[in-house]
Amino acid sequence: MDILLISPCLRANNISSKKVIVSITMSKISETLSSNYEKLLALTKEVIVLQSASSIIYWDMETKMPPKGVNLRSQQLAALSKIIHRLSTKPEIGNYLSNIEKNPDYENMNQLQKRNVYLIRKYYDEQTKLPEKLVAETAKQEAITINVWKKAKAAKDFLLFKPELEKMLNLKRQAADILMEVKGTKTPYDALIDIFEPKMTADSISRVFAGLRDGLMVILQKCLDSANQPDSKALKRKIPLESQRRISNEIAKFIGYDVESPKAGGRIDETEHPFTTGYYDDVRITTHYYENDMASSLFSVLHEAGHAIYDQNLKQEWMYQPIGGHTSLGFHESQSRFIENIIGRSREFWTHFFPILNKLTNNSFADLTLDAFVRAINHVRPSKIRIEADEVTYCLHVIIRFEIEQDLIPGKISLMDLPQMWNQKYKKYLGVDIENDSEGVMQDTHWAGGMFGYFPTYALGNIISGQLLRTMENSISDWKEQLAGGEFINIKKWLVQNVHQRGDLYDPAVLIKKITGEGMNVKPYLEYLDAKFSWVYGY
Amino acid sequence: MDILLISPCLRANNISSKKVIVSITMSKISETLSSNYEKLLALTKEVIVLQSASSIIYWDMETKMPPKGVNLRSQQLAALSKIIHRLSTKPEIGNYLSNIEKNPDYENMNQLQKRNVYLIRKYYDEQTKLPEKLVAETAKQEAITINVWKKAKAAKDFLLFKPELEKMLNLKRQAADILMEVKGTKTPYDALIDIFEPKMTADSISRVFAGLRDGLMVILQKCLDSANQPDSKALKRKIPLESQRRISNEIAKFIGYDVESPKAGGRIDETEHPFTTGYYDDVRITTHYYENDMASSLFSVLHEAGHAIYDQNLKQEWMYQPIGGHTSLGFHESQSRFIENIIGRSREFWTHFFPILNKLTNNSFADLTLDAFVRAINHVRPSKIRIEADEVTYCLHVIIRFEIEQDLIPGKISLMDLPQMWNQKYKKYLGVDIENDSEGVMQDTHWAGGMFGYFPTYALGNIISGQLLRTMENSISDWKEQLAGGEFINIKKWLVQNVHQRGDLYDPAVLIKKITGEGMNVKPYLEYLDAKFSWVYGY
Repeated sequence: MDILLISPCLRANNISSKKVIVSITMSKISETLSSNYEKLLALTKEVIVLQSASSIIYWDMETKMPPKGVNLRSQQLAALSKIIHRLSTKPEIGNYLSNIEKNPDYENMNQLQKRNVYLIRKYYDEQTKLPEKLVAETAKQEAITINVWKKAKAAKDFLLFKPELEKMLNLKRQAADILMEVKGTKTPYDALIDIFEPKMTADSISRVFAGLRDGLMVILQKCLDSANQPDSKALKRKIPLESQRRISNEIAKFIGYDVESPKAGGRIDETEHPFTTGYYDDVRITTHYYENDMASSLFSVLHEAGHAIYDQNLKQEWMYQPIGGHTSLGFHESQSRFIENIIGRSREFWTHFFPILNKLTNNSFADLTLDAFVRAINHVRPSKIRIEADEVTYCLHVIIRFEIEQDLIPGKISLMDLPQMWNQKYKKYLGVDIENDSEGVMQDTHWAGGMFGYFPTYALGNIISGQLLRTMENSISDWKEQLAGGEFINIKKWLVQNVHQRGDLYDPAVLIKKITGEGMNVKPYLEYLDAKFSWVYGY
Repeated sequence: MDILLISPCLRANNISSKKVIVSITMSKISETLSSNYEKLLALTKEVIVLQSASSIIYWDMETKMPPKGVNLRSQQLAALSKIIHRLSTKPEIGNYLSNIEKNPDYENMNQLQKRNVYLIRKYYDEQTKLPEKLVAETAKQEAITINVWKKAKAAKDFLLFKPELEKMLNLKRQAADILMEVKGTKTPYDALIDIFEPKMTADSISRVFAGLRDGLMVILQKCLDSANQPDSKALKRKIPLESQRRISNEIAKFIGYDVESPKAGGRIDETEHPFTTGYYDDVRITTHYYENDMASSLFSVLHEAGHAIYDQNLKQEWMYQPIGGHTSLGFHESQSRFIENIIGRSREFWTHFFPILNKLTNNSFADLTLDAFVRAINHVRPSKIRIEADEVTYCLHVIIRFEIEQDLIPGKISLMDLPQMWNQKYKKYLGVDIENDSEGVMQDTHWAGGMFGYFPTYALGNIISGQLLRTMENSISDWKEQLAGGEFINIKKWLVQNVHQRGDLYDPAVLIKKITGEGMNVKPYLEYLDAKFSWVYGY
């Protein structure tokens, strides 16, 4: 249930010369400045286009590639990342940036232009500081570590995974040390966080997570103590894959993620782990169907479609420009979790969709009441696997990873002790016993892929989704009635206007304030959960 | 039924440093020379890897891309071709080449090394002479012209197609003028031919084609005059697509093109027009299923699988080196036509496969005798469409295109007169009346894609396949009995050893002589056809 990035922070432009002239006229900047800016965007566009090509190559590897092609594929991905790194560190980019920044007319550039320059500068400074050798080595190690991770996970053998993870961790530590200096962060770990969540730090996340953890533990306890437990057995009924595929398409259509029309800009495929990848007019999601667990794919599709409509509804005129990206991974996750949970696990969504589900499954759930079904899909049960977790325990999985990463990056704990630490925290926060490392520390691919600092964004996304909900309720007070009536269009429009169309115009902390009027705040999310689960569990 | 190229003539190396040392020791060349050579191959490898990535992007466009993604895709393909052109014209390549060629030790390089140097030099000289602007413009125009061709073909409107075709033709004329000088060919058209069929010329092709045309016309007349016409009505029986997909997999397996095992290096997808693309461990084919024409897909799969096993059986240790490519498009086509026709339309293949076909189609052809079925799939009937043509008329379609190209490139005929000339030649050679340009001059995509000089290779492939057959019969005298017994392994081994494993070690004229002991000769192919069709038609 992940979003795969083209790149953490870079996108570029397709301004036609005519449009450039218009924007020049509007912002009244000198010809030299506008010519430098235009050339800068052209160089950036090349990088963004190649990144989008690379994401297709990645998608193909996960979905269609014949098994034998894996070595050639890692060569292709490494070659592309090398080229992309080379193009994004071209000295010309540095020259254009300096020319623009030093130009007396710089202050007259408009906000969009300045933000583009800022984002390109940030990415350029970081990338030029990372040696090409380190970048290429990391790309290669990524393929190796992920491959070993797959084998080790299948064999439940952490010791098989450990040496390659160690190499990956060391490469990432090297990068973090370099990035810390460029970004001016307090710690190397903060530099890694900044890649995914600009300007956030371990300290600021810790503060937010402390309140989140305490709030969740209280709700969790109330759910566990309730005498009124939902019965989710019905969700394990056998639903043919063909029916599940039709459900996916219906859900996607409802959310506004087009995968079937002759003008469709998306498609749904099947992979071991669901993900989203793509850019603007070609954004693809994947899911995994289990005959005896139709909810798994159903909520994966809702989740990924939430990611997909974000990417599809970025401002068209910003395509190929850095501002035509997303603001952060946390914001991306806020969209997927909003659609998956706030919409997709609501009584109102199912008021509309439950009859459709029954129609598509040959009345497989016709013996259940709407309420029984909605309570079933909201069953809270501490578990071992993050991607299968319910809304109440999900963030606890994330907090565990965040706490570990904080100690892991500076080497406060060794990889040898990692499984033990993992298992202890799962016992402490979730009360579950991890029996082997495949259901423990090796369950996720992120660390194998070198994505340290990524996990926190999952919980930040949930927090943001709560704040978005509260704000949306002010402008669409009858959103629940609309949803129950099968109408999603106004909710989607609200998300498009408030989040998607703002692209990467602001850092996440600024954007959350623009939308909600306040900084990051766990309260709305906790209140949303408490209200919902007090209904589900009757506590 | 086309093969899509990664590039006409460039492939590179993955020699590990250890292997390099071995090869250095063996060929006893100086350290400076071997270091230059190693660096040259490393630069070439980068190009080849990116070309293989580009071919995946192309495959995705034809098979999986959501329709809305077309503009982004053309940007991606153009960006990749620009990068590939830039990398293959790097001044360093020129420097390494000069250093190597001037090195007194050059003569001590072994044959493989010298061939690599020769192929890189040839490609480098050509590419450096082609301005980046022309390359990028051609890539862009290609996407545009193909798009317009699709629309014009659907609308049966040549005038819609003409302006864009004109632009493409002019770009190709520019390239041909430049390449003529670099390659030292007599005419610009010869320079285009040389891209696909090194060292072949319009003159040499004309000579071969004259004999081919005369021979085919005689056989055609004998078939048409025969009172003993095959009945091919049974081939139009409705066969469910699911059965046809199983047939494809069975055929692929028989030929040795693995698409199903966990170690498969291929896959079969569905597109409007069948094609093959890929490199070594990831070679993919496509086909098109028609419920009422199962033979269409069946022979497409045989054809494309013939291409695929060539690419899959190139010498593994030459992967990423220029010699690890194919010798020419004509040779590639010889493999596909060998498998499609000499094997796939033989009585012996069907002795084995006819019962399997009946099993897979719920006995759809059980009322036919083996002979009736084999005669049906060998029905000769002059037609309008090349890719649907039988073995006797197929090359006549190609000769028509070749004759037209010879006049078109130097501007002896204008595009305005093209349809009329096309239709006249179809009347003259095949006796058919073209009713609209969609079944006439617009039937193929090649010219839209700028592939002038490509068509002759289709007929050359047939001629070569005949020469290969005659030579193979000398070493596997009982090949027909083996095939009838369901054994293809020795035939495949012969092709692998004699053609595939020789990669791009020789120009086509040299390779044909190495294998058969003689130059290009239409006689074996005409004799093969005459023998076969005298049986089919009892003349």
